[in-house]
Amino acid sequence: MLNRVAVIGVGLIGGSFALALKRAKAVTHVTGAGRAVGSLRAALDLGVIDAASDIAAAVRGADLVLIATPVRQIRGVLEAIAPHLDAHTVVTDAGSTKQDVVAAARAALGVRVAQFVPGHPIAGREKSGVAAAGADLFDGRNVVLTPLDENSPEAVARVRAAWEACRANVVEMRAPAHDAVFAAVSHLPHILAYALVDDISTRDNAAELFSFAAGGFRDFTRIASSSPEMWRDIALNNRDALLAEIDAYHVRLAEFRNLIDASNGDALERIMADARAARDAWLEQFNASRAIE
Amino acid sequence: MLNRVAVIGVGLIGGSFALALKRAKAVTHVTGAGRAVGSLRAALDLGVIDAASDIAAAVRGADLVLIATPVRQIRGVLEAIAPHLDAHTVVTDAGSTKQDVVAAARAALGVRVAQFVPGHPIAGREKSGVAAAGADLFDGRNVVLTPLDENSPEAVARVRAAWEACRANVVEMRAPAHDAVFAAVSHLPHILAYALVDDISTRDNAAELFSFAAGGFRDFTRIASSSPEMWRDIALNNRDALLAEIDAYHVRLAEFRNLIDASNGDALERIMADARAARDAWLEQFNASRAIE
Repeated sequence: MLNRVAVIGVGLIGGSFALALKRAKAVTHVTGAGRAVGSLRAALDLGVIDAASDIAAAVRGADLVLIATPVRQIRGVLEAIAPHLDAHTVVTDAGSTKQDVVAAARAALGVRVAQFVPGHPIAGREKSGVAAAGADLFDGRNVVLTPLDENSPEAVARVRAAWEACRANVVEMRAPAHDAVFAAVSHLPHILAYALVDDISTRDNAAELFSFAAGGFRDFTRIASSSPEMWRDIALNNRDALLAEIDAYHVRLAEFRNLIDASNGDALERIMADARAARDAWLEQFNASRAIE
Repeated sequence: MLNRVAVIGVGLIGGSFALALKRAKAVTHVTGAGRAVGSLRAALDLGVIDAASDIAAAVRGADLVLIATPVRQIRGVLEAIAPHLDAHTVVTDAGSTKQDVVAAARAALGVRVAQFVPGHPIAGREKSGVAAAGADLFDGRNVVLTPLDENSPEAVARVRAAWEACRANVVEMRAPAHDAVFAAVSHLPHILAYALVDDISTRDNAAELFSFAAGGFRDFTRIASSSPEMWRDIALNNRDALLAEIDAYHVRLAEFRNLIDASNGDALERIMADARAARDAWLEQFNASRAIE
């Protein structure tokens, strides 16, 4: 049971975290803070947070602080809270990249980085903002923690317990492994989808091309309707891992190209069939994990 | 009003065509033919077709013949029906590529190619086979016809009227333009999706990577669960246009790579924002066109 929780950045993720903790009766009092005054007022009106204040007051005396701002702002937030951190306070974040956040935390917090347990909840919705928040957002979803060598077991356990109270499935990884994994399964597909839409939409006959795009195109490019600011940051913050993924993909696509160029139907069909089988097996597990929610 | 229609290959597309014509009371009698005896029996039981026969008997005396087999089999079907074509019979097809089908039709039919009006209905479902067929499959969907110089206006009009009776939106294009358009908006995305799944699923840590794949990955790769046989054929049959698309995409992806490598956040965000705006504008029109159905 947490007494006081502070949420810095009360949007979809921060708001849902507050609501999920309340649903579990795992918190007594949630204070919200952040730059967007309108969001804080809405969060108060919706009962997502119990009070709104500036960052210093929100953090002071808190058992747990979640930083759920855009990843670019995390360093500034850490610098702002550093002077107000009680010795018992544990801080975590919700950033989509982790090595850059760890570096920012070391720079901003110094030895107090031991109180910072980096995290990444794998959850989202089409809509953003606190109005879209819900207590069920993390049900059955993965939350990755990338604990630091400096973290005490108690600090890690406190963050883990909070996410588990949100009914999330908590997984621990090293930050570099986290960034490599998400470069492959999330960041690369986003870049590929943006690149396809860019490729089509900047042609002279874009209107004609779009007029024949159908359901397959819609689903393939859905993630190209994601926030450009967020994905710009992710691409730059996880640059090295993402570049390695793009390079590997170039090679793979070139292999497909060569098979098509050589009219090697047997090899092409075999690779496509293997890919379909792998995806179908994954999808079955994925759907099963979501059905548990 | 069509008196006799023959459908060669009574699966999802062929079966839905028969049902849609019946819904419109635009046909008196539909005969099905094809290699899959089980499909023909199911089509009879479901009332999709009125009779099943061999290809020769199905075609003889028909006003309209739809070839809805896998695209690879179209040439063989055309050769099989050629000796049995009445002078008044018009033939069309449902193949996803058109220049190769036109070449096959010229080879198989000789001067009778004037009776063949190439077509491509842009419709599908997750499930295939006649059991998935429905009279509404083509409601509001595009059907592209790529008429030949040899076709009479009456022949083209008969095919157009049949698809319009199915409530489809009929568009005419030249075959090379058709193949270029669909290479860009359909064939390329399929190859990109297969390549991503192949890229992930053949790694040593594939299981770990898949365990963190989420909704974005699922939608991006949905089309990689398509039929390998069908997409092998499309890739090879539309090879030149598809290779040009893959090459253009390589260049575009390399541009994204360079922006990321240079940490050029401004340019990256601008391109992503433009792509999102283009996709969102397209999606609005696309959804509106589907709502009309």
